[in-house]
Amino acid sequence: MSEVNNLLEQYKNVRKHSVDLCANLQNEDYVVQPIVDVSPPKWHLGHTTWFFETFILKPNLNGYKEFDSQYNFVFNSYYETVGARVIRTDRGNLSRPSVSDVYTYRRHVDDNMFRFLDDNIDENLTELIVLGLNHEQQHQELLLTDIKYILGHNPLFPALKLSIPFNSLHNPRGTWESFKGGVNEMGFEGDGFCFDNERGRHKIYVEDFQINTSLVSNREYLDFISDRGYQDFRHWHAEGWEWLKTRNVRAPLYWHSIDSMWMNYTFDGLKGITPEEPVCHVSFYEASAFAAWKGVRLPTEAEWEIASERIHWGQRWEWTGSAYLPYPGFKKAPGAIGEYNGKFMVNQMVLRGASVATPQGHSRNTYRNFFHAPQQWQFTGIRLAE
Amino acid sequence: MSEVNNLLEQYKNVRKHSVDLCANLQNEDYVVQPIVDVSPPKWHLGHTTWFFETFILKPNLNGYKEFDSQYNFVFNSYYETVGARVIRTDRGNLSRPSVSDVYTYRRHVDDNMFRFLDDNIDENLTELIVLGLNHEQQHQELLLTDIKYILGHNPLFPALKLSIPFNSLHNPRGTWESFKGGVNEMGFEGDGFCFDNERGRHKIYVEDFQINTSLVSNREYLDFISDRGYQDFRHWHAEGWEWLKTRNVRAPLYWHSIDSMWMNYTFDGLKGITPEEPVCHVSFYEASAFAAWKGVRLPTEAEWEIASERIHWGQRWEWTGSAYLPYPGFKKAPGAIGEYNGKFMVNQMVLRGASVATPQGHSRNTYRNFFHAPQQWQFTGIRLAE
Amino acid sequence: MSEVNNLLEQYKNVRKHSVDLCANLQNEDYVVQPIVDVSPPKWHLGHTTWFFETFILKPNLNGYKEFDSQYNFVFNSYYETVGARVIRTDRGNLSRPSVSDVYTYRRHVDDNMFRFLDDNIDENLTELIVLGLNHEQQHQELLLTDIKYILGHNPLFPALKLSIPFNSLHNPRGTWESFKGGVNEMGFEGDGFCFDNERGRHKIYVEDFQINTSLVSNREYLDFISDRGYQDFRHWHAEGWEWLKTRNVRAPLYWHSIDSMWMNYTFDGLKGITPEEPVCHVSFYEASAFAAWKGVRLPTEAEWEIASERIHWGQRWEWTGSAYLPYPGFKKAPGAIGEYNGKFMVNQMVLRGASVATPQGHSRNTYRNFFHAPQQWQFTGIRLAE
Amino acid sequence: MSEVNNLLEQYKNVRKHSVDLCANLQNEDYVVQPIVDVSPPKWHLGHTTWFFETFILKPNLNGYKEFDSQYNFVFNSYYETVGARVIRTDRGNLSRPSVSDVYTYRRHVDDNMFRFLDDNIDENLTELIVLGLNHEQQHQELLLTDIKYILGHNPLFPALKLSIPFNSLHNPRGTWESFKGGVNEMGFEGDGFCFDNERGRHKIYVEDFQINTSLVSNREYLDFISDRGYQDFRHWHAEGWEWLKTRNVRAPLYWHSIDSMWMNYTFDGLKGITPEEPVCHVSFYEASAFAAWKGVRLPTEAEWEIASERIHWGQRWEWTGSAYLPYPGFKKAPGAIGEYNGKFMVNQMVLRGASVATPQGHSRNTYRNFFHAPQQWQFTGIRLAE
Repeated sequence: MSEVNNLLEQYKNVRKHSVDLCANLQNEDYVVQPIVDVSPPKWHLGHTTWFFETFILKPNLNGYKEFDSQYNFVFNSYYETVGARVIRTDRGNLSRPSVSDVYTYRRHVDDNMFRFLDDNIDENLTELIVLGLNHEQQHQELLLTDIKYILGHNPLFPALKLSIPFNSLHNPRGTWESFKGGVNEMGFEGDGFCFDNERGRHKIYVEDFQINTSLVSNREYLDFISDRGYQDFRHWHAEGWEWLKTRNVRAPLYWHSIDSMWMNYTFDGLKGITPEEPVCHVSFYEASAFAAWKGVRLPTEAEWEIASERIHWGQRWEWTGSAYLPYPGFKKAPGAIGEYNGKFMVNQMVLRGASVATPQGHSRNTYRNFFHAPQQWQFTGIRLAE
Repeated sequence: MSEVNNLLEQYKNVRKHSVDLCANLQNEDYVVQPIVDVSPPKWHLGHTTWFFETFILKPNLNGYKEFDSQYNFVFNSYYETVGARVIRTDRGNLSRPSVSDVYTYRRHVDDNMFRFLDDNIDENLTELIVLGLNHEQQHQELLLTDIKYILGHNPLFPALKLSIPFNSLHNPRGTWESFKGGVNEMGFEGDGFCFDNERGRHKIYVEDFQINTSLVSNREYLDFISDRGYQDFRHWHAEGWEWLKTRNVRAPLYWHSIDSMWMNYTFDGLKGITPEEPVCHVSFYEASAFAAWKGVRLPTEAEWEIASERIHWGQRWEWTGSAYLPYPGFKKAPGAIGEYNGKFMVNQMVLRGASVATPQGHSRNTYRNFFHAPQQWQFTGIRLAE
Repeated sequence: MSEVNNLLEQYKNVRKHSVDLCANLQNEDYVVQPIVDVSPPKWHLGHTTWFFETFILKPNLNGYKEFDSQYNFVFNSYYETVGARVIRTDRGNLSRPSVSDVYTYRRHVDDNMFRFLDDNIDENLTELIVLGLNHEQQHQELLLTDIKYILGHNPLFPALKLSIPFNSLHNPRGTWESFKGGVNEMGFEGDGFCFDNERGRHKIYVEDFQINTSLVSNREYLDFISDRGYQDFRHWHAEGWEWLKTRNVRAPLYWHSIDSMWMNYTFDGLKGITPEEPVCHVSFYEASAFAAWKGVRLPTEAEWEIASERIHWGQRWEWTGSAYLPYPGFKKAPGAIGEYNGKFMVNQMVLRGASVATPQGHSRNTYRNFFHAPQQWQFTGIRLAE
Repeated sequence: MSEVNNLLEQYKNVRKHSVDLCANLQNEDYVVQPIVDVSPPKWHLGHTTWFFETFILKPNLNGYKEFDSQYNFVFNSYYETVGARVIRTDRGNLSRPSVSDVYTYRRHVDDNMFRFLDDNIDENLTELIVLGLNHEQQHQELLLTDIKYILGHNPLFPALKLSIPFNSLHNPRGTWESFKGGVNEMGFEGDGFCFDNERGRHKIYVEDFQINTSLVSNREYLDFISDRGYQDFRHWHAEGWEWLKTRNVRAPLYWHSIDSMWMNYTFDGLKGITPEEPVCHVSFYEASAFAAWKGVRLPTEAEWEIASERIHWGQRWEWTGSAYLPYPGFKKAPGAIGEYNGKFMVNQMVLRGASVATPQGHSRNTYRNFFHAPQQWQFTGIRLAE
């Protein structure tokens, strides 16, 4: 969250941004769920709204009238505390509530939130509202990844005009930056917002290391493919090797070899590969195999955080070699909010940085993103260390 | 097909009926596919249109301009002859073509068909066009069954106002009608349209039999449930018993026990059971188990056809005890049209009659419908024989 | 059952034959279950014994001491009436009871049965004992099919010396034998043993037909393969086509293309194909596709039974084009014995005749064998009709 | 490996121990594979032998005659470098090679190894042979876990007389031992054998922590069950919660609630729970949920290693809160041996210590064992930290 002082303004800006992202969708694009990782766009719009209705308005706004009592069932995601939920694989089977109903729901909740935020300066709730806004920003990135998946897996490969700039920045050839080992600190400290998983700041010991100033480019990744990187088990984790054989993976997601030329789906439709852009939509298995092929490795999240002041980051979420685990002294918050992060701390890998799809001001150098090793559908890339 | 002499009028009527059935759908209802048996309504509208474009217009109308060459990929169902197809489970993941595009596609093909039917009295193609119309009528029934499934499995249980009368007729208490055995004939004979699987008329020997003049009612079926029919393996085929245990089936599809009362989803929303209505949405396993519990059996399709003059039929597709197999002398037609029926003649059961969802004039007493033994989502019911 | 008048002698002969079939097995061969269709040989030996213990000895022999009360759980197959059973896929996970314990169990039951059969001439039980013997003979064929599967899917392809002659008879080139249509009769009649599914004899009407006097040979089947029969969907049922693509089927079971030559696993190990032998281990899908490729069809079971006096049969179970359904007037017997056949009468195809693995005297021309359309592991072949 | 100086003696001792562990198995117990995690005992005996044949004898012993060239296919586990392998789920379907053949194979390889070890003092191979012996010791523990699984999932719950003492030591009530934070070192250092994943010794920073001197007992774990620990999602990781609901887990593996009393399967058969014994056969999910319920946590592997001098360990493998990842500077060895550990470093958790099933002298306080979070079949327990 950038330096906006007024909470109401922040609320309005964040909420508007979600709607803006969907500006050029066709109605039908809001509905489908091609894989379980993807949620229908209308679900994201409803779920982020449900957060404010459930945790702010219903317990705190006198006389608040729930929009529709069934929506809790439809738009709850995983908060076991709050009640029954539609099982995840079923989200794409729900034609109702309609897109139009979801927008009405948003306006209903927004109108009440405006009223609530005007009247209230109750400091105790500010923290929860800011959490809700950061939650919505996370779903803004998911909206983009999921819309891309929906359109990019349609045989018509439709383009989508986005209301936001969405180009990868220049990715100049990198150099190796050296860092001296020793006791360092990591984790969030300060006054602004952070998620519970970033706290508390603590000491760690790192060895001397080097990190590359640039992300791995498509050109470099094409070398890996040409060198038969996907055919040589020695670069891969055992389960990564199973994964690529079972699913017949030969390239990053959205890449298609057409008449012996690599094309890739973007929001502008099916296009040729841009060699100098950072490679995108790779799994942890692929990131790790690429590094092994190069004879180097991925950075740990500690190394990444130490190095973050001296590298340019923000085009791709960067896979680290660190598993997603609690920091020393981590405690879940009580109640439903406590389900936010802690319960996912097993069998996922940490990603650091941000991507072109991350809302401005949302990330920071202590931010801990996390996904499962095989997942490719996020805007994920590779930075090397050694 | 009712007694409309003019093919152009027939074409216009049938095509309009498909659109009429969808009149009150919301845009999102056209898109989803909750189970593999169900197709999204927009797919039905596109697929039936694709039939006329592919088999009539493209090969026969000079200068016909294909609407979109990609649509063959999207709207082909199972005609292996005609090219690649979207795998069946993926139909519900396609947000494009949009509903609006599909209606434009229909108009494009209809305009060309109108022109074609005006100019052409080529008798050779008439048969194929009539097949296309009967094909579309089959999909009209599927439109209703699939829309019902989509809305009936939504937690909001939305009602849908239909543009056609859709009430079950009165179902008076039945009597046993007796038939003398001997050599009889079955199969289609005459000038009108029939499917290839109804030909040719042939002799069969049947024993003396009795058939009930009425369909089994909800009241009778409730007795079966009350008598713990779903808990007693002795009534069931071994694989029916596996099916009900694995899927935890306790009642016909759309039935819900709410506060110890049986409700069922209809196009008017969630309603109480009407006792005297014929039971609907039962699988072959259930039909067969019910008959076993009664100490009787389902009729064979030969018995049904013989008895059809003396019984009232047309509210439910009636499961028979006959497997779907070729009649003596059955031959597939050459080319793609030959894929219509023959290749499904294994592991399915024959249903006879028609249902409230069957377009008027579409069925006849030699009509052979067929589904897999576990399928419940059609408007299927039970008639008893002994 | 051949013409042995004395029940005790029959019992001894049948029981001994099961043991003889396993004479050259290694201990470990008795234990495994590579696919769910196959049962471990020691299970067959125990299950057939359990039949006599459960249905004869326990209810009828005063003072009979059950061998082990847990065996009911282990050796029951599918008799829901009689109690819990080990789920089918788990049979191959049971190292105990050991092979030696199973043989002890057999001797325990046999000793008691000898005593029982000496003392008893109670006519009422004779029928049930004869059923038990026919049941054991069915498992004798399954023993051979399952042992072949176990050894034939071992990478060492071990040979097995059988204690019985097991060669295919000569299969001379066939001719087409013609039959005049009309009302005929089918089904069992007479004094000997038959299964409930063969009763009662009834009239059927058949059209004129021709049937081939020989089974389809390996040579003919190789022509089908060479003509790319497995690559042309037009010959196949839709679900047969799915089956072969999903499982990558290219030939009958046990055939291996090694250095461009077709070999096949037999009880003598891996051998070259004998061209004039009847093709074996084909599924219904394959039998049906082969017939379609030839432009003919499989016989119905009625035709087969009518023709059976004029054709030589007995080398392969012959797939018919008839689904396995009850004959007119079929009634299940009361109690556990009633579960024998009736509950399987859906989604299976009838096979007629017998195979080289069928115990001598076990089959007859009214015998109705039945398997699922994809199953290949029985000694199944193809006879053509038109 | 304990302090045996002579490599030949070591080899003889280790190899004999594997055979001793199987002394009282019945032949059939060697063959089955009830779940994919379990390997048939004869496979363990063959696979450990194959290691010496493949990596020592074939490349180094002049004139060595391979026992059977097919065995590479049967007994290779996961070494992609060395050639094709039987897929893991198929191990339990192989009746051949027989148990007797496997023992002959062991003797053949042992005889050659004896000869080889007598003649050779080639220092270069010593390391590889010691690796082979440690590899065999790992499989000795797996032999016990797998045999327990095979017998413990048999409805007859057979007991097995073991040739080794196999009792849990006394587990006195524990106290909390405190450790001061700061920079520490972890990892193997010194002359003896260690696995590549234990190298190299490196600095880590740890916070102040406390660790319990005892393992969690059955009594304490029963409290967790009684307090409805398996019914309260708040204690569990999200995927742990899915795991227990999907598989209906209510207790550690081998626990059975019989007439409202908890029993558990041991090598002595089905017995009552001993309250003061350390709880065994829990998954990481369970260990972690138990700790959360207690308001504490699992130790990290760094904490465990630091604390290892002051705690008694060795009855259960102790789940840590650390993911299995490479130590700083980890490099895979070249060739097949390099596949030993590195490729498994994703999505597994580290366990420290040893269990009653671990061969004497095999483990040490830097030893890193690792399993997947849901796995229960090892002798795993819980130690708490905070």
